[in-house]
Amino acid sequence: MKVLINPAKENWTELISRPEFDATGLEDSVKNTFRLVRSEGDKALISLTEKFDRLNLKKLEVEKAEIEEASKKLSQNLKSAIMQAAENIRKFHNAQLRDDLRVETMPGVVCERIHRPIPNIGLYIPGGTAPLFSTVLMLAIPAHEAGCKNIFLCSPPSANGSIHPAILFAASVTGVNRIFNIGGAQAIAAMTFGTETIPKADKIFGPGNQYVTMAKMIAQQSGVAIDLPAGPSEVLVVADAEARPEFIAADLLSQAEHGEDSQVILCTTSEELSKGVLREIERQLSALPRIDKASSALRNSSILIFPNVETCLEFSNAYAPEHLILQVENPRQYVEKITEAGSVFLGAYTPESAGDYASGTNHTLPTNGYARMYGGVSTDSFLKYITVQEISKQGLINIGPVVEQMASGESLDAHKNAVSIRLKSIQ
Amino acid sequence: MKVLINPAKENWTELISRPEFDATGLEDSVKNTFRLVRSEGDKALISLTEKFDRLNLKKLEVEKAEIEEASKKLSQNLKSAIMQAAENIRKFHNAQLRDDLRVETMPGVVCERIHRPIPNIGLYIPGGTAPLFSTVLMLAIPAHEAGCKNIFLCSPPSANGSIHPAILFAASVTGVNRIFNIGGAQAIAAMTFGTETIPKADKIFGPGNQYVTMAKMIAQQSGVAIDLPAGPSEVLVVADAEARPEFIAADLLSQAEHGEDSQVILCTTSEELSKGVLREIERQLSALPRIDKASSALRNSSILIFPNVETCLEFSNAYAPEHLILQVENPRQYVEKITEAGSVFLGAYTPESAGDYASGTNHTLPTNGYARMYGGVSTDSFLKYITVQEISKQGLINIGPVVEQMASGESLDAHKNAVSIRLKSIQ
Repeated sequence: MKVLINPAKENWTELISRPEFDATGLEDSVKNTFRLVRSEGDKALISLTEKFDRLNLKKLEVEKAEIEEASKKLSQNLKSAIMQAAENIRKFHNAQLRDDLRVETMPGVVCERIHRPIPNIGLYIPGGTAPLFSTVLMLAIPAHEAGCKNIFLCSPPSANGSIHPAILFAASVTGVNRIFNIGGAQAIAAMTFGTETIPKADKIFGPGNQYVTMAKMIAQQSGVAIDLPAGPSEVLVVADAEARPEFIAADLLSQAEHGEDSQVILCTTSEELSKGVLREIERQLSALPRIDKASSALRNSSILIFPNVETCLEFSNAYAPEHLILQVENPRQYVEKITEAGSVFLGAYTPESAGDYASGTNHTLPTNGYARMYGGVSTDSFLKYITVQEISKQGLINIGPVVEQMASGESLDAHKNAVSIRLKSIQ
Repeated sequence: MKVLINPAKENWTELISRPEFDATGLEDSVKNTFRLVRSEGDKALISLTEKFDRLNLKKLEVEKAEIEEASKKLSQNLKSAIMQAAENIRKFHNAQLRDDLRVETMPGVVCERIHRPIPNIGLYIPGGTAPLFSTVLMLAIPAHEAGCKNIFLCSPPSANGSIHPAILFAASVTGVNRIFNIGGAQAIAAMTFGTETIPKADKIFGPGNQYVTMAKMIAQQSGVAIDLPAGPSEVLVVADAEARPEFIAADLLSQAEHGEDSQVILCTTSEELSKGVLREIERQLSALPRIDKASSALRNSSILIFPNVETCLEFSNAYAPEHLILQVENPRQYVEKITEAGSVFLGAYTPESAGDYASGTNHTLPTNGYARMYGGVSTDSFLKYITVQEISKQGLINIGPVVEQMASGESLDAHKNAVSIRLKSIQ
């Protein structure tokens, strides 16, 4: 990790920039996948899986019996942990539901805001070495709390053709209706257009590799909504001299183990602490199975030493981190100064991994500086709001002349007339 | 207008489909504009305005004096109407702000959700024959209520090089900080990258022609958020036998006058009523200055006759209209059946134009079936939510083992270790 002491503000632009990713070639390949899936449906899914995953799929949908069997393949401890995490996530996301709004803006003019679930929700859960069953909880639970009726999930099959039982179990306890063993850009294409087997989604959620990310971008251009633009995961830790180096090292490493492109930044007021953190990283790193991934992520990472916590936070706001950890004395006093971040972790006993799995907040968060304009996935992500207005006769007498004036001002006579014809009928 | 009696459900897919728009060629042209503006900044804006608008811009920013002068060029009646509409819009959008949320999901595990304004908001207001000052209100007021500090606006200059005074006036009374007289895809590109004069936006709002729409799509791929994917404006009216044909005709025409590609649908339970509406359209149309635009929009429009109001609403939900007008007896009883729509207008005295201008609801709404997954612009559109968690020592003792189990299950040892190292320190 490179260490910079009080970098000047004119150099911040470079420090907050994320590596740009060259998508040339990728886009054409994914667009081709979309064309194939759109025109050939299931047939394309099977041939693309053979081509990319070298798997001969016998069926696209996971059978009920296999989902029920999954529970038996997991330890009771893991299942209990999943159920407890699910309960916390449910509590926090249920509390995000709002009452309908009703405002009488003028006498006789009532405006309302009501919410309705998005009908068809497609979830994508990556496969690979780590079965991300926690992401199933983070997406299916708020969808269920929002009232979504049709929640389905695609996940790539492993070499034996099946999906990890922890993913199947997490899906079965969170209201996922159907599960398909298909992955990659072809899964996103299938949920975009629908095939004989896979339903068309209105909105697609979930992380993935660069093919999946590109596919979600193309899905968005094809009339489907997506959760968030994606980028590599990030953490920024703000620490003062009293923070414990071993905790900070552990937090930085838990971000770094995601892989080479992870972004890890420590902003601290104490050079002494930064040395302690570096020693602790060295010590803890050697015990990690993912030592290679973590080491290369750390090579791209920085420690920045600033004169005070306020400047650390000013830098953090400019960076707009996905995860922001405050290991400082009385962290609560600084919350009002945080203007850009995905999720914030306050104090020594709040590691990022608690939020990744079980505290109740969502772990699908804005990366790549998108925390400037997007929040993470929430119950709102599975809803839309509809406005309703109802105007009484007297209300129209009150508001009508305002509308007539404005419609005239915009030269929209039929808009004006829709009011005038009613006002005349009242007189 | 074509009239269909009780069309079978297997034909609904065709009836709810919107015309597809061929963007070939457009995309290349707009991408080229983006490249030019990114590399040459203000210079590109001036040369592109000369090329596309045949105007030799002397300055990009509208001067304070010109904005102050605007008020004098408008009638007192129009200014009063704008102020009253602004007040109603402010009331409804202010009421959408939520209190911060705090939930203790487990003893000692506190999760919160706080909101922060998006810092830099770029508004686009089209020029052309009708000066859309109402859209200034609809975008700048919620931005201001959300607490956005930097709200700026681009609008194309008219032939005399200036922006319509009603747009300048609306901007000046709603907290817009700076106004630039630049339009088209180049304005969107300028707000995407920033130039010497024009600030970089975090999120871009506002309607526009097909170039602007394409430019917003490309802006979104360049790291800027946008309000909504755009399409032609639409209304669907549901009416029963007791509805007044002249009101319905006026509502359909106020949609149709937007232009040829407007979508206008009437679903009714009464063939008798449909005939009355057709007669009234004929009568009212002849008096409209925009008769050509309205006539061609009506040629693409339909009247559908269904056996009951419930089926009308079932069709409406499948269509997911931007505007839904219910001119039926006791419309309130049907609100719970509405699952997809942008904004709903209840009863005989609630014309769409009231919502377009002044009732208080937002007129920037999802078109093209996007009401399935998006709501219209709201105060939330100018905010993002940040989650915060704070775990006490006892809280970590409670939740720690859950996190350890799950991190192990996902083979993320450093995630587990960030908890274990803290739990050990507590013992």
